Amino acid sequence: MRIHSYQIDQHNSTALKSHESSLQFLRDQLAHKSIDAEAIIERLRQFQVAIPSWALGAGGTRFGRFSTGGEPGSLEQKLEDIGLIHALTQSAGAISLHIPWDIPRDAQAIKQQASELGIAFDAMNSNTFQDQKEQSLSYKYGSLCHVNADVRKQAVAHNIEVIRHGIELGSKSTTVWLADGSSFPGQLNFRTALDNTLRSLQEIYAHLPADWKIFIEYKPYEPYFYSTVIQDWGTSFLLANQLGEKAFTLVDLGHHLPNTNIEQIVSTLMYQGKLGGFHFNDSKYGDDDLTVGSIKPYQLYLIFSELVYGMDNNTASNPEPAWMIDASHNLKDPLEDLIQSLEAIRLAYAQALVVDRQGLWDAQLNHDVSMAQEIVQDAFRTDLRPLLREARLRSGAAMEPVRAYRELNVRQQLINERGTVTIATGL
Amino acid sequence: MRIHSYQIDQHNSTALKSHESSLQFLRDQLAHKSIDAEAIIERLRQFQVAIPSWALGAGGTRFGRFSTGGEPGSLEQKLEDIGLIHALTQSAGAISLHIPWDIPRDAQAIKQQASELGIAFDAMNSNTFQDQKEQSLSYKYGSLCHVNADVRKQAVAHNIEVIRHGIELGSKSTTVWLADGSSFPGQLNFRTALDNTLRSLQEIYAHLPADWKIFIEYKPYEPYFYSTVIQDWGTSFLLANQLGEKAFTLVDLGHHLPNTNIEQIVSTLMYQGKLGGFHFNDSKYGDDDLTVGSIKPYQLYLIFSELVYGMDNNTASNPEPAWMIDASHNLKDPLEDLIQSLEAIRLAYAQALVVDRQGLWDAQLNHDVSMAQEIVQDAFRTDLRPLLREARLRSGAAMEPVRAYRELNVRQQLINERGTVTIATGL
Amino acid sequence: MRIHSYQIDQHNSTALKSHESSLQFLRDQLAHKSIDAEAIIERLRQFQVAIPSWALGAGGTRFGRFSTGGEPGSLEQKLEDIGLIHALTQSAGAISLHIPWDIPRDAQAIKQQASELGIAFDAMNSNTFQDQKEQSLSYKYGSLCHVNADVRKQAVAHNIEVIRHGIELGSKSTTVWLADGSSFPGQLNFRTALDNTLRSLQEIYAHLPADWKIFIEYKPYEPYFYSTVIQDWGTSFLLANQLGEKAFTLVDLGHHLPNTNIEQIVSTLMYQGKLGGFHFNDSKYGDDDLTVGSIKPYQLYLIFSELVYGMDNNTASNPEPAWMIDASHNLKDPLEDLIQSLEAIRLAYAQALVVDRQGLWDAQLNHDVSMAQEIVQDAFRTDLRPLLREARLRSGAAMEPVRAYRELNVRQQLINERGTVTIATGL
Amino acid sequence: MRIHSYQIDQHNSTALKSHESSLQFLRDQLAHKSIDAEAIIERLRQFQVAIPSWALGAGGTRFGRFSTGGEPGSLEQKLEDIGLIHALTQSAGAISLHIPWDIPRDAQAIKQQASELGIAFDAMNSNTFQDQKEQSLSYKYGSLCHVNADVRKQAVAHNIEVIRHGIELGSKSTTVWLADGSSFPGQLNFRTALDNTLRSLQEIYAHLPADWKIFIEYKPYEPYFYSTVIQDWGTSFLLANQLGEKAFTLVDLGHHLPNTNIEQIVSTLMYQGKLGGFHFNDSKYGDDDLTVGSIKPYQLYLIFSELVYGMDNNTASNPEPAWMIDASHNLKDPLEDLIQSLEAIRLAYAQALVVDRQGLWDAQLNHDVSMAQEIVQDAFRTDLRPLLREARLRSGAAMEPVRAYRELNVRQQLINERGTVTIATGL
Repeated sequence: MRIHSYQIDQHNSTALKSHESSLQFLRDQLAHKSIDAEAIIERLRQFQVAIPSWALGAGGTRFGRFSTGGEPGSLEQKLEDIGLIHALTQSAGAISLHIPWDIPRDAQAIKQQASELGIAFDAMNSNTFQDQKEQSLSYKYGSLCHVNADVRKQAVAHNIEVIRHGIELGSKSTTVWLADGSSFPGQLNFRTALDNTLRSLQEIYAHLPADWKIFIEYKPYEPYFYSTVIQDWGTSFLLANQLGEKAFTLVDLGHHLPNTNIEQIVSTLMYQGKLGGFHFNDSKYGDDDLTVGSIKPYQLYLIFSELVYGMDNNTASNPEPAWMIDASHNLKDPLEDLIQSLEAIRLAYAQALVVDRQGLWDAQLNHDVSMAQEIVQDAFRTDLRPLLREARLRSGAAMEPVRAYRELNVRQQLINERGTVTIATGL
Repeated sequence: MRIHSYQIDQHNSTALKSHESSLQFLRDQLAHKSIDAEAIIERLRQFQVAIPSWALGAGGTRFGRFSTGGEPGSLEQKLEDIGLIHALTQSAGAISLHIPWDIPRDAQAIKQQASELGIAFDAMNSNTFQDQKEQSLSYKYGSLCHVNADVRKQAVAHNIEVIRHGIELGSKSTTVWLADGSSFPGQLNFRTALDNTLRSLQEIYAHLPADWKIFIEYKPYEPYFYSTVIQDWGTSFLLANQLGEKAFTLVDLGHHLPNTNIEQIVSTLMYQGKLGGFHFNDSKYGDDDLTVGSIKPYQLYLIFSELVYGMDNNTASNPEPAWMIDASHNLKDPLEDLIQSLEAIRLAYAQALVVDRQGLWDAQLNHDVSMAQEIVQDAFRTDLRPLLREARLRSGAAMEPVRAYRELNVRQQLINERGTVTIATGL
Repeated sequence: MRIHSYQIDQHNSTALKSHESSLQFLRDQLAHKSIDAEAIIERLRQFQVAIPSWALGAGGTRFGRFSTGGEPGSLEQKLEDIGLIHALTQSAGAISLHIPWDIPRDAQAIKQQASELGIAFDAMNSNTFQDQKEQSLSYKYGSLCHVNADVRKQAVAHNIEVIRHGIELGSKSTTVWLADGSSFPGQLNFRTALDNTLRSLQEIYAHLPADWKIFIEYKPYEPYFYSTVIQDWGTSFLLANQLGEKAFTLVDLGHHLPNTNIEQIVSTLMYQGKLGGFHFNDSKYGDDDLTVGSIKPYQLYLIFSELVYGMDNNTASNPEPAWMIDASHNLKDPLEDLIQSLEAIRLAYAQALVVDRQGLWDAQLNHDVSMAQEIVQDAFRTDLRPLLREARLRSGAAMEPVRAYRELNVRQQLINERGTVTIATGL
Repeated sequence: MRIHSYQIDQHNSTALKSHESSLQFLRDQLAHKSIDAEAIIERLRQFQVAIPSWALGAGGTRFGRFSTGGEPGSLEQKLEDIGLIHALTQSAGAISLHIPWDIPRDAQAIKQQASELGIAFDAMNSNTFQDQKEQSLSYKYGSLCHVNADVRKQAVAHNIEVIRHGIELGSKSTTVWLADGSSFPGQLNFRTALDNTLRSLQEIYAHLPADWKIFIEYKPYEPYFYSTVIQDWGTSFLLANQLGEKAFTLVDLGHHLPNTNIEQIVSTLMYQGKLGGFHFNDSKYGDDDLTVGSIKPYQLYLIFSELVYGMDNNTASNPEPAWMIDASHNLKDPLEDLIQSLEAIRLAYAQALVVDRQGLWDAQLNHDVSMAQEIVQDAFRTDLRPLLREARLRSGAAMEPVRAYRELNVRQQLINERGTVTIATGL
């Protein structure tokens, strides 16, 4: 299925008038604070977030999975799905692949398809947390950290293969997320595990092309429940530093212990020039992988506030981070869910862009804590949705993408094309 | 110090024009969704939140306290401070007293002063978590739960005295918060402690006038760090049920374990007709007692959404809950901080009032989870601040109370009147 | 496979001498404190813990599952496995079935097999958190709480069927664990959900035989990540009270928010005569379902201390709780893991039995907090394993059951009999 | 007051016989596992833990403080108290001073007194979290991180003064714990704050004598409740690396978010040669500062297991860490409480020393997770208290120090000497 521009135009035409008056009101409101709406609309237009290939089907928990119809059964169909989201939003212009789930049979054809849809290839992802059928050694007791050198070798080789696939497709980075850890005290020798992980990563790093980056993800627990080798940003940062200039830390919002101040971690990493990428989702308890912004939108905005500040004051030459949504869709239509996540991300980004930075800095200098709060909350409380709509309008996307998705009956068409019982690979 | 209406008027006149256009825009936006702005403004005008007497001075932690100048040194000055907040906001029309910190020397004079300031007497608060100089037995090892009957008797008598003071002043309820608990396994016999607490509360309950209510507060930890006798809503609810119809559970936002779904607790209590009162504050880690809405404004809105739903669908005849701010002001000017808290509370209330209830119910019936989220988030994302300004304007309060507070130089005047080294009683 | 007494005897004979001297040393140590080792050995012999049918195969997480060979593929094989554990420990004399995974084709034959193995039928378990193939309506959006009366009816009927199966087999209780909840604010109307759950439970309750009990389990989150209808003991207790005398709360150790004082909940429930059952496991982060005692053995002991105190001071006529292990075996051999759990449970029970209750009570009366801690820790620090060995020895079980399990090559024999690729039903 | 050896001898004589038989039994038990009890006794004898000067009086919370009689009112009396603990335990042979609370009027006299009591001077501690009377600028809004260079300068000068006092007394290290942080989003510019902290620490570092070490402590929250500049080990480690070879991270057990795997942090730091010191206490909720081992003794043992492993496999030349108890005594007699902490520390140390390291390593190599757990738990479940008694006996300390403390009526004598209303400085 494909969405045509006349369909988008039709959708947009119905709400245009009301949008224009909202936008004008907001424009005035911002001008009153000396904020140029135009510049923000332009930054919003340029901001693209990658969709991971595994997020397009229904997710599940250890207790079960309730399927959605019309799930994509091939890499081509996954690209098609992202193409639909991108057509509706013009803000999902990249895909993040997962090997071995997404090994392209014909890389050129896939590149061609992606190019036609306006989709780039973001960071590649390896998988050493599951055993594949053809695999000779098991990852049950770890991969890059494994005490057995043969298992490490196999896992390293897999990561190098992932890079090779990425090179073919034009990707420029790879993300390593390791489940490696233990569920019982005594199961793992912490030091050996970390040391083996470092050495394995060094071997992978040696195969990284000159213009590539490698992102080291961290997570405190799950799927193991006592220890995880790369348990926090500190461990990831330590590894990234020992690997070299092309290695960076990747922050996944759901990978933190209760009450962690994530925005401060983001700030520290950018201060050190080591923030490589960002996985967006939301959570109340653990790695719940819920729709971005559905639980803690204020925290999301505070994180974006640090990201914007870091990008605009880039003293340590931090590269532009790789942005990706990493959620699991157990209850909602995955495409609707992703559209809602994109909206929440862009709203938080817009809020961060309208913060009165000079006023905030003055308040900080004067220890005017109340005023600092007023400034931070004012940006958040202002209704900036008209800017998002305008950015979409100018890019040829739908002003109200969820409504457009429904008006166009996308899910039903996908079911008609693909059937109700397809199962997408992924979590 | 007293704020005069001409000062308020002067303040309001400067921003009137811009306010009117904002209000008109919002009014149209709401009308488009068939929401009557007038009804909401009216409900906002009526919504009053009590200020506790102990919140008017600088708070502190176990590590120290940094004082603010001009803190109120007497009950009269505390009333004066609340009068200032009320004049600026017309939404702080009640005081919650703490005995023995606020024993009135002349109850009639105090009533007179309060009446002139438009301030009612909300729930009374007892104190059995500290030892007072004149006190014969110590609460170091508990009060209402104490193994020693004499200590329990003393604590019961104190609570009865608190009720007596409340009767004199025209209060209609009393809140019991107990620090009672233990810091080490084995220190306390859980069952005996809970049983003693129940019996002590029954004695207090017997002294409650017919038209009074008693609120039982719960808290998981602090000041003791292993167990607290009334550790959660379940324990409070159990006690309230055994006490009788005049007993209710009181929810303090900061008194929960990490990740608790507080809005669901609120819903359950109202479903059972047992939600008696609410202490507002905000927190990231524990009972941090921060400004309301400063950390988790979305959670605050979701809680208010349950409160509004519960009040509008009051099948179990839950009485109107007692609303109070219970924060500690370690860094900000207490009066500014309270004004910010009032604003956050009223904003969350307004958001809850504009939720499309029928649409939400339809989405729930159809398991349209995406749409339910759209509806819930739409109310939150709409900028409703013009309604708050209008409600204040109509009530004779300041449209921008923090700004007005500063323009009127309130803190400096209080320092001039009271000095820089006064210390208010409280935490 | 079956373990014969001569095999057990052979195993025991090798360690007998060293055991006897350890036991004598401990006996003297306890006698010194006026504790009768014999009485404790007898209580340990009588203490039986149920094994759930789903715990006998390899568990998994949402990220995958690594299988173990020789997993039981039928109810008969599950009974066989528990028979092996029981032969080795004489403390796993009950099975807890899960419907529909364990619907017996021939109930009489199953009863006969269980009887020969010395295994009773503990609480039955229903499943309304997954969709079964033959099922007409989905539980994706809830079961007993569902807004659609037909779904509730189907879920109620299933629970009644579970009771019917239990009657056939001689069980006397049923456990209701509901996944019902929501992952997004707005998805669920809290009040309607709780009210529907109550009404559905009332219908099930009406079908409960006179000598049966129903246990209401609670859990804060997972598989849904925003709200769970029965989120805590307070909600379960509220439901149990409204259902009637045959309804009780069931505590699963892993179903609590971070830092919860579980032992106090246990005490409160026994104080009210409403503790119906207990699911043992251990966890560091969430519902990790690890081996009992592997992470927080001191907490386990403190919980047992309350259980023993509650049973010995049973003022509210709490029935003997149903004890069950509810763990998931992702990394270890499930049978070894269960044997380790049984050992940890019985060790904690023994520790709780040797607490100097009179000394503790005296310390509590005198507020001698240091002494109370000394007493509580003394019981925990004493090495009571010889009592456990002696209890097993007298019951005809293996003194060192893990070692015996390995010496007898149990797993290899099961693999020989059943193959390496069997998959047990369960989580 | 002073405890004489004849008093200790008298105490020991009464329990000697029973001790000897226990020790013999344990010695045999260990010998059976090829463990040499003598070597462990010797390591226990050498293991000394510092007592901080502020732990000798009653602590408190923000809600209040209940005093203990006989609290030390001067540095001399604090040394006297530690002398008492050391006489009873021979394991508290060091004091950790806090400036300005413990500025010695006569350094030589203090050194003389300490030397007579067998007490060394451990790490010095600065205080920039409170304002002192003579202080010109306030730390209300930070110290080393402050935006105002004058405040930073004052705080740096204070730290240099602390080093100077330490040099006089013969200390060789200084610990920097900073409260610096914020309670509201926007209050602090994270990057500036961290950068200022680094620069301030560099100035202090420049004044460190060649044979000194500086320890950087971290803490997630309290006394500020939104952010803390040095929030976790990662931040401390980053700073320590940038400072240089004499800078190390200090771990305080209570300074972690819920569910943190602390033992893994310890392992990682020793792997990098950057673990400088350790503050012992215990907690259930936050920085509860409870008696060591009173809440999570198994975690304490697992941490010690990493410490012992790290010291015995010191590939990165980590210096011997500085050990200190950092607890607050709100309910118990501080001296009894410290004695209980010392016992718990030494018990965990002994348990870590008897772990079958070779067996554990073999189990890890073979992925024998059950066996690894058996080995780890076996050491913990063995009753090693006779080794602690024997170590004390050989060093001339009391076999049962709490009992000896009570038999000698220490507290009453201190009250007689010092009165009931003295207040010790500290928290």
